[in-house]
Amino acid sequence: MNDAVSIAAAVREGKISAVEVTQAALNKIAARDRQLNCFTAIMTEAALADASRIDQEIAQGNDPGVLAGVPFAAKNLYDIAGLTTLAGAKINAENPPATEDATVVARLKQAGAVLVGALNMDEYAYGFVTENSHYGATHNPHDLQRVAGGSSGGSAAAVAADLVPVTLGSDTNGSIRVPAAFCGIFGLKPTYGRLSRAGVALFSTSLDHVGPFARSVRDIATVFDILQGADDRDPVCTKRPPELCLPQINQDISGIKIAIADEYFARGAVPEALAALEQVAQALNVKRYVTIPESARARAAAFVITASEGANLHLDKLRSRPQDFDIATRDRFLAGALIPNQWYLQAQRFRRWYRDRLREIFADVDIILAPTTPIPAPLIGQQTMILDGEEMLVRPHLGLFTQPLSFIGLPVLSVPIQRPNSLPLGVQIIAAPDNEALILKVAAVLEAQGVVSATTK
Amino acid sequence: MNDAVSIAAAVREGKISAVEVTQAALNKIAARDRQLNCFTAIMTEAALADASRIDQEIAQGNDPGVLAGVPFAAKNLYDIAGLTTLAGAKINAENPPATEDATVVARLKQAGAVLVGALNMDEYAYGFVTENSHYGATHNPHDLQRVAGGSSGGSAAAVAADLVPVTLGSDTNGSIRVPAAFCGIFGLKPTYGRLSRAGVALFSTSLDHVGPFARSVRDIATVFDILQGADDRDPVCTKRPPELCLPQINQDISGIKIAIADEYFARGAVPEALAALEQVAQALNVKRYVTIPESARARAAAFVITASEGANLHLDKLRSRPQDFDIATRDRFLAGALIPNQWYLQAQRFRRWYRDRLREIFADVDIILAPTTPIPAPLIGQQTMILDGEEMLVRPHLGLFTQPLSFIGLPVLSVPIQRPNSLPLGVQIIAAPDNEALILKVAAVLEAQGVVSATTK
Repeated sequence: MNDAVSIAAAVREGKISAVEVTQAALNKIAARDRQLNCFTAIMTEAALADASRIDQEIAQGNDPGVLAGVPFAAKNLYDIAGLTTLAGAKINAENPPATEDATVVARLKQAGAVLVGALNMDEYAYGFVTENSHYGATHNPHDLQRVAGGSSGGSAAAVAADLVPVTLGSDTNGSIRVPAAFCGIFGLKPTYGRLSRAGVALFSTSLDHVGPFARSVRDIATVFDILQGADDRDPVCTKRPPELCLPQINQDISGIKIAIADEYFARGAVPEALAALEQVAQALNVKRYVTIPESARARAAAFVITASEGANLHLDKLRSRPQDFDIATRDRFLAGALIPNQWYLQAQRFRRWYRDRLREIFADVDIILAPTTPIPAPLIGQQTMILDGEEMLVRPHLGLFTQPLSFIGLPVLSVPIQRPNSLPLGVQIIAAPDNEALILKVAAVLEAQGVVSATTK
Repeated sequence: MNDAVSIAAAVREGKISAVEVTQAALNKIAARDRQLNCFTAIMTEAALADASRIDQEIAQGNDPGVLAGVPFAAKNLYDIAGLTTLAGAKINAENPPATEDATVVARLKQAGAVLVGALNMDEYAYGFVTENSHYGATHNPHDLQRVAGGSSGGSAAAVAADLVPVTLGSDTNGSIRVPAAFCGIFGLKPTYGRLSRAGVALFSTSLDHVGPFARSVRDIATVFDILQGADDRDPVCTKRPPELCLPQINQDISGIKIAIADEYFARGAVPEALAALEQVAQALNVKRYVTIPESARARAAAFVITASEGANLHLDKLRSRPQDFDIATRDRFLAGALIPNQWYLQAQRFRRWYRDRLREIFADVDIILAPTTPIPAPLIGQQTMILDGEEMLVRPHLGLFTQPLSFIGLPVLSVPIQRPNSLPLGVQIIAAPDNEALILKVAAVLEAQGVVSATTK
């Protein structure tokens, strides 16, 4: 498998140089990204210089790190020293370059990974489609007519197109999981607060998560373990001692209690999305169902909080230069600025109620399965879709199954379901807070069985 | 000194029985509370039964607890099994009795203290005067024409009148510190989240603190140590291992860096309030000043958050039966329900900024001194006061110096300044989060010097 772990192994063993690997990634980007539009910045010189340093370390017999020579890229809301952090916005292009890397970018570099560029996204991370009116739409490598998903569309498409094996994205309501599902790769939204957000442009402070995309479970686990750990620069990233996940991956999941989310999570999806879930359930021999109550209300509350907190971070610019926002983003921010405070406070109160219900469910279940998206990737520009016989808008509803879960900060991995000759679809593997290792164990079993696997195009 | 510690010692040594102590307290309440109006419920039978059990324990040679036989009472927003929790409201009188004691009430009982009743307060804790239109005004024992302060007015007056040596109150913007200052006793507002609020009717969730009133520093420390410790019933009361304060009280404060808050905290007070602060500063030989920036803005932000969160907890009743609220409370709740969400979110953002500034200040200073109130207790019914030559409303401005500090959850003890033949006044001793022990050390030195001491009337 051409994943990050195998690349790093080859580099560390001297079978290939970091410079060769990096140059190959840059060549692929040069060849294909004009069509895909994943990248908003390509750091050719810096990447080759970093790769060269890795090769020197190896030549000197030093340990260059677990991800030695692995090319990676980050959604353009991560600070990258020397680049302006766009966050998908035209307005932000006027900002000076960042002076320091975001903490998680720095940690990947310290592990030997080589940063090759910054990736396209919905403006200010507000969207599920990456049809950015300033920087263009990112195209899905599996069908160039279709969206890559969003808001981390560039991050998902770059991995699915085999431009780089690892990218970083962010997920507020599904912005890692939706594009991971549409692009046929793995995308992890960790527990709220588990990874540092220092140096990351925020969208909605109480909902934002950062996380990785990759093409194998071991890559996700490896990257997650590197990124873990408290960060003085982020007061939300608490001092939990990191529990490493990679060493826990084995093929024994016999003691893990798994159930399928029913009711809300079994409605409003096209049949093939439910069939994908069924493939996973059968492979794991899961017959049990759990009901997560009031999930529609949880999604509504997530909308209220997202729009309110999102608007708050951009209030000055919404007042002074609304014409410079992406039109799809602006109108939702403006609406968010007008949400009554009592709606916001009720949403936060309900959030505690919903968290308590999930805590009760997780007293008796370890893992919950649900579809990632209600449909496979829609066409670029597609306005509506039919769900359960009802025509509805595409953009706000792609997060139907992801929003209630990020709302209370649960860790979720979207795994790509093996569907030959079909568009990719994902299934969410959900656990209680801080149980990322459990999720990755289950995902590794599914991957070994061939039920889930990343597909590159 | 006739404080709780001395009473418990006498009871434990068999010099006096718990029943005698309790009966004496009940007699004092019967004699004086018609005038003072501290109590909204007196639990004669339950108190005597509890006292009798303490006496039996002692007779059997068992340890009845550190506060054996000490009478205490709680603001009527604490759940007391068998009593309806009024929270100062007529509406709440329709509720069924509580089935379980609030956690902190239960902890005092477990330590041998004897609960004798529930205490008057401003409706839903929203006020600084305890002029409750449903249950009457509480009178200041030092001058019956004057307010006891609020919202924990009954709690402060009951201790100042020597009805009981210890009471429990709550502080959102100053509701422990203001009445402690007006009544000439000690009142501790601990660090946010340090004491359990389980079973306490909330007013403004992100600002509410519970804490004790008493007549000596050792009583405050003893009670605080009993109340400390994580509580599964309160998700805000975190799992910090309790650092006991009482053992740390000694007369050595040589290493403690103390400063006086200037600018905002040196303006808007009558000369005698600043003179009280000066008494403390001279006794401690403090010559250093610190400036806490933007404290007026902090107070404004605290108002916004208080009114918003407060309204949210009563939204249904504000809609369905506004006429049943206290008029002083209702109009502020209604205004709070209409506060724009962006004001609330800006206030919360500013709160993080202000917390960071205080964190910087506390890197170099251990203790900050400030006045508790701008004036001594005003007359009951008094509408305005003159501060710095400007006439302003009494009720909202009594928290001028307390609100900015509770806004970010700092621990503060209001100490009573020795002012013979004058109305009581308080000084706030302020520390960084979780540094209650430091505060109590400084207070104990002032008490030993006779600069601060509780006065009963």
